[in-house]
Amino acid sequence: MDDPVLLTGAAGRVGTAILGGIADKYEWRLLDREPPTGEVDHEYVVADITDEEAIREAVDGVGAIIHLAGDPRPEAPWDSVLQNNIDGTQTILEAAVDAGVEKFAFASSNHAVGAFETDERKPDIYRTHDEFRLDGTELPRPSNLYGVSKASGEVLGRYYHDHYDIDVVCVRIGNLTKDHPPIDYERGQAMWLSYRDCAHLFDRCVEADYDYEIVYGISDNDRKYYSIERAKEVLGYEPQDNSAHFDD
Amino acid sequence: MDDPVLLTGAAGRVGTAILGGIADKYEWRLLDREPPTGEVDHEYVVADITDEEAIREAVDGVGAIIHLAGDPRPEAPWDSVLQNNIDGTQTILEAAVDAGVEKFAFASSNHAVGAFETDERKPDIYRTHDEFRLDGTELPRPSNLYGVSKASGEVLGRYYHDHYDIDVVCVRIGNLTKDHPPIDYERGQAMWLSYRDCAHLFDRCVEADYDYEIVYGISDNDRKYYSIERAKEVLGYEPQDNSAHFDD
Repeated sequence: MDDPVLLTGAAGRVGTAILGGIADKYEWRLLDREPPTGEVDHEYVVADITDEEAIREAVDGVGAIIHLAGDPRPEAPWDSVLQNNIDGTQTILEAAVDAGVEKFAFASSNHAVGAFETDERKPDIYRTHDEFRLDGTELPRPSNLYGVSKASGEVLGRYYHDHYDIDVVCVRIGNLTKDHPPIDYERGQAMWLSYRDCAHLFDRCVEADYDYEIVYGISDNDRKYYSIERAKEVLGYEPQDNSAHFDD
Repeated sequence: MDDPVLLTGAAGRVGTAILGGIADKYEWRLLDREPPTGEVDHEYVVADITDEEAIREAVDGVGAIIHLAGDPRPEAPWDSVLQNNIDGTQTILEAAVDAGVEKFAFASSNHAVGAFETDERKPDIYRTHDEFRLDGTELPRPSNLYGVSKASGEVLGRYYHDHYDIDVVCVRIGNLTKDHPPIDYERGQAMWLSYRDCAHLFDRCVEADYDYEIVYGISDNDRKYYSIERAKEVLGYEPQDNSAHFDD
């Protein structure tokens, strides 16, 4: 990707993981509603994701967008996810297709499908012997209204891909933690995503050719109940980490 | 169903079809943002679907809700479907679970999946020899932002069903026209829904037992590319009409 890459929600945890791994690889345009707390080596735009005019300016001239901005709280109230996550995603997708952006990677979430973890399936679903897998072809079953908003963002991506010339990949991000997997938390270990695998995965979302995809963003954990086959096949994702390689 | 049934968007086309068929069968509470144009035999509430307080009053004491209210225009702008269709559906679902409503039938739309009608599939998809079928297990591919809003409403229904004690059925309504199918319009004939089949289908949504379902709402047309098997099996839907029985 020779054109600049826009990273929204750049100051958040996922943005930090991505920049920690591939800051030198692209000409970045960072966007966040909070101003930077330290020195920044890249262009930095302070804007709210629902500010249509600011977003139109921010997408101008970029080749790809990694869209992380939104209310990240699983317990976020409806009004906030309606505005920041659903309306915000529509705002930037509309601006992106008008500006001719080629690729759009959307930070979806494991909460879009959290209700597959039924009482009948738990805790076996989190253990290595269990063969239950979600692969991205299933209809969403959100854990919460935040998850509803992420599933709606996936549908918006589908619409804009089908009707305009933009590739869209939705990454259902697992449990992103730095340095090591969550401790004493089987579910978090099953859906662990290491910082370096996160950076590599979104790098592939910028570099690979695809049409419309829903993939799971987790490391190659022994415990997994999310398939990473599609991410490997379509994006060339090659995770290096596995929560089983850490002593709990 | 002995308790009253709330019908939102009662003055619209689908509401008219339903009341035309089963007005005498239930104790109805009708709701529309427009006041009635003629005499009404049922309780009638004038309220906007996004008016949380009015909606909480309207759902109080009902056993089932048929939720049709929303912007019905396929070409409706985003801001309208965001507010009326997505936020409106969340408002009434939240009120419904708080009030202990048992059943919720949601008027989804063929526009939630309109982009399956690709240039490669058309016009064969509309003809009787073609065996392509959508059955409700597929991920949405909306035709337009209205379709996005309907797919989002389906996800909201899934969330409220999974987390609260309410049965939800999403009916992807086809092309509802009175007396006869659309003329010289293969697509409309393939997804035709007669008024009497519409009334019967929503009657089944009030009477049948289900958990969470997505079904297609069309008559038993020879041309169909939407499966009605699930509606037959789970709801006991027995359509009487078929667009092929009309001279074009």
